Amino acid sequence: MIKYQQIAAEIETYIEENALVQGDKLPVLEALMTHFNVSKSTVTKALELLEKKGAVFQVRGSGIFVRRQKRKGYMDLLSHQGSENITSKVIELEVKKPTKEAAHHVNVEPDEDVYYVKRVRYRNGQALCLEESYFNKSIVTYLNKEIVSESIFDYIQKGLGVKVGFSDVYLHAGKLKREEAKHLCLENGAPSLYVESIFHVTNGQPFAFSTVTYHFEQSHFFVQTNSPFS
Amino acid sequence: MIKYQQIAAEIETYIEENALVQGDKLPVLEALMTHFNVSKSTVTKALELLEKKGAVFQVRGSGIFVRRQKRKGYMDLLSHQGSENITSKVIELEVKKPTKEAAHHVNVEPDEDVYYVKRVRYRNGQALCLEESYFNKSIVTYLNKEIVSESIFDYIQKGLGVKVGFSDVYLHAGKLKREEAKHLCLENGAPSLYVESIFHVTNGQPFAFSTVTYHFEQSHFFVQTNSPFS
Repeated sequence: MIKYQQIAAEIETYIEENALVQGDKLPVLEALMTHFNVSKSTVTKALELLEKKGAVFQVRGSGIFVRRQKRKGYMDLLSHQGSENITSKVIELEVKKPTKEAAHHVNVEPDEDVYYVKRVRYRNGQALCLEESYFNKSIVTYLNKEIVSESIFDYIQKGLGVKVGFSDVYLHAGKLKREEAKHLCLENGAPSLYVESIFHVTNGQPFAFSTVTYHFEQSHFFVQTNSPFS
Repeated sequence: MIKYQQIAAEIETYIEENALVQGDKLPVLEALMTHFNVSKSTVTKALELLEKKGAVFQVRGSGIFVRRQKRKGYMDLLSHQGSENITSKVIELEVKKPTKEAAHHVNVEPDEDVYYVKRVRYRNGQALCLEESYFNKSIVTYLNKEIVSESIFDYIQKGLGVKVGFSDVYLHAGKLKREEAKHLCLENGAPSLYVESIFHVTNGQPFAFSTVTYHFEQSHFFVQTNSPFS
């Protein structure tokens, strides 16, 4: 972790430990520099990162303020960091040819092998979602059943050293098909939130494409946006 | 519009006019400085803004590359700029006491008046969503039926001069209630995507709370994220 990322993490811990709420003012720049014993540019970069993440907002000439979503149980739509109390049941782990769509999204030829993972994820023992993912094997070079029972992203980053960058996310509501419903213990045709994501390495190469079918009663999401208007 | 925002808009136009696609490289910094006849810091700020918006990504030591969602008909979940071919049928426009929840979200006392707007929005004449919004009257000081038939956000920004900042967005899938279904010409119990948003002025004051109930077959969204992992 680069210095400013570490400081950003420490500021987030500070916000949490002091139970700061939306609108609370953070200490001024100079105080943060002294507290963390770092340069102005490091603090500034840390704050920019936190603003990007939607953890703080800056008001020109007035200061830096806390942003915190206040609803219990809501998941961050755009963060794929392992949530707590998540377990997985692996239904399929295979090396195989991708669908045409998946090949396109992970940037391989249709006759090139990819890793394919299908699993049901549970939160506190309750079915949360059905997840199907395709991984570009030239970037995600190895997976096994033990790995895919846990957080695949943790492994990809920490185990394989892949630098995960941005992602493109697509979502819509729909009706569950019979097989999806069975995995989620819901009725055929029940509502569902479908979330498709294409994940890229920081250099822009796509390495994974996933389709996640959520249990509608178990999945509530939040997104903290930056100014979409500017 | 500040200079760097204008340059950002021009770079976006350049991307569009040249039909650049995801992964295409933009001209180097120096070329952009010359082309737009502006300073390095202006170009840098413009590119940072575009990166924040998910329009480009930067690869250290390599350059700046285009990001473009490639699916036709998908709407940007986090942009509330007026989409094309959207019309509205106003069902209710009232000054009234907010619900307890709405009062909390727009930061008024429960016995304080707010503007309440309920409308159905159509895209190309097809029901897209049912929208209920509460506006803090001390910020959104005036609305009338003509205004709320068009883009309320356009008016708030251009007409009232409100500087719209960040928003908190909450979403989940669910089953349509009878009255919602009627407005969207769907069956009672059909799936729906529910999106709640709290909009803030750049100084952090909340000024609007809206609940939007989407027609599931008409609403597909995309979000272009920045590195959520960093």
